[in-house]
Amino acid sequence: MLPAMGTLPAVTDRSAPDDILDGRPDDAAYRRGVVSLLGLLAVGELLGFERLATDAAAAPRLSDRAALQALAATEQAHFALLQERLVALGADVEATMTRYLPAFEEFHRRTAPSDWLEGLVKAYVGDAIARDFLREVSGSVGPSTRELVLRALEDAGHADFVIARVRAAVEADHRVAGRLALWGRRLVGEALSQAQHVAAEDDELTELLAGTPERPGTDLVALSSMFTRLTEAHTRRMAALGLSA
Amino acid sequence: MLPAMGTLPAVTDRSAPDDILDGRPDDAAYRRGVVSLLGLLAVGELLGFERLATDAAAAPRLSDRAALQALAATEQAHFALLQERLVALGADVEATMTRYLPAFEEFHRRTAPSDWLEGLVKAYVGDAIARDFLREVSGSVGPSTRELVLRALEDAGHADFVIARVRAAVEADHRVAGRLALWGRRLVGEALSQAQHVAAEDDELTELLAGTPERPGTDLVALSSMFTRLTEAHTRRMAALGLSA
Repeated sequence: MLPAMGTLPAVTDRSAPDDILDGRPDDAAYRRGVVSLLGLLAVGELLGFERLATDAAAAPRLSDRAALQALAATEQAHFALLQERLVALGADVEATMTRYLPAFEEFHRRTAPSDWLEGLVKAYVGDAIARDFLREVSGSVGPSTRELVLRALEDAGHADFVIARVRAAVEADHRVAGRLALWGRRLVGEALSQAQHVAAEDDELTELLAGTPERPGTDLVALSSMFTRLTEAHTRRMAALGLSA
Repeated sequence: MLPAMGTLPAVTDRSAPDDILDGRPDDAAYRRGVVSLLGLLAVGELLGFERLATDAAAAPRLSDRAALQALAATEQAHFALLQERLVALGADVEATMTRYLPAFEEFHRRTAPSDWLEGLVKAYVGDAIARDFLREVSGSVGPSTRELVLRALEDAGHADFVIARVRAAVEADHRVAGRLALWGRRLVGEALSQAQHVAAEDDELTELLAGTPERPGTDLVALSSMFTRLTEAHTRRMAALGLSA
C-alpha cells in the first residue's frame, strides 16, 4: 500500500506533471501552497489514526473497538492517497509533514480525553471539523487537487455510530450533557487556536487558502470568515448531539 | 465499511447459505468449528491492529509511523472480511470473539516490547506466524472458507521493511542480535503456549484443525506436528534476520 515501505521519499528534482499542478506547472508559489496543504492534511490523518487507535483500545466492547479501528483505517487510506500525491509532486514528505507535526501534537496533548465518552466526542468533532475544512479548502485549489481533497472527504464520516452512543449516554445521565458540552467547546477552541497558530506562521498555506485559484491573495478576512463558518457548523452539530456548544 | 456500526450483530437463527458452509450445511460440528476458527482469527486481527498502532505511535520517524499504520490498516481490512463472514454464518460475533480474547490478551501482556526494535521484531514474527497458521488452516476447511482464509493471507506480509530495519540495527551494534534472538524465542514460546492452551480447551476448534474436510478427527499428533512446523519456519526466519533462534 505504501509506495516505499519504511522510508518516505526524499526530495527529488523530477518535475511534477502539469495535471497534478492543476494546470499551473510554473507557479512555484502555488506548488508550495499545495504541498503545504497536503502535508498538513497528511499529518492530520496520521495523528487522527493514532488518536482513534488509542480510543479503540480503551473501548468497553469489542464492537466499539472494531468500529473505531475501522475509522482509523479510513484515516490511513486517506494518508496513503495524500502521501502518494506528495511523492508525485516531488515533495520532501518527511520534512513537509514535520513542519505541521507540532501543531497537531499540541492539539492532541491539550485534548487528551479523560474517558471513553470524551474520546467518542473528540472523534466525532474532529472528523466533522476535518470534513468542513476539506470542503472549504476544495474551493481554494485547482481541479486535480480538488478531486484529491474531495476523495478524502468522500469516505470519511463513518462516525455516525458515535452520535447514537453519545445520545444514549446523555439520556441515561443528564449530567453527562453539561460535561460533554464543555468538552466540545474546549475541543473546537483548541483546534482553532492551533489553526490560527499555523495560519500566522505559514505564509504559503495562508496565501493558498485565503484566495481562490482565480483570485489568489492573502485575504485574512476570508481566512477569519472560514474559521467562523467552521465554528458555526460545530455549534449546530453539538446541538444535534443534544449538547449546547 | 462495517455492516452495522457500533454493534456487532447478535445471534440470529437465519440459516447460512450452503456455499459459505463449504457444501456441509447440515454438519453442525463443522459449522461450529468454522465459526470458532473465524472468531479466533478475527480476535488476532483486532489485537494485532492494536499492537501495531501502539508500535506506530512509538516509532522514531514519521515514515516508520506511516508504515506501521499501513500494516495495522491491513489487519483491519482482514478483520472486516472475517466479521462479514461470521455475520453471514449467523454467528454471535461478540460472544465468539470474547471466547478467544483472553489468550491473545495474555500473549500481548506477556510480550510487551521494551523498545522500538522489539516491537518491530514482534510485528514481523507475529505476522509471519499468522501467515503460516493461515496456510496450515486452509487445508483443514472446505473451499469457501479456504478462499476467505487465503484472502486474508494474500495482502498480508507488508512487513518486509521490518527486515531492513532490524538488519541495519544488528549491523550497527552486534550485541543487539543476541538480545533480539532471545526476544524472538520468547515470542514464539509464548505464542505456542497460548495456542496449546486454546487447543486444550476448545474441542470444536481442535476437531476442525486436527482433521481435514475429508477425514475429520481429533488427531492430536497432527496438531502437534503443525506446532512443530510453525516453530521450524520461525527458526528459519530468525536466521534470515541474522538472529539465531
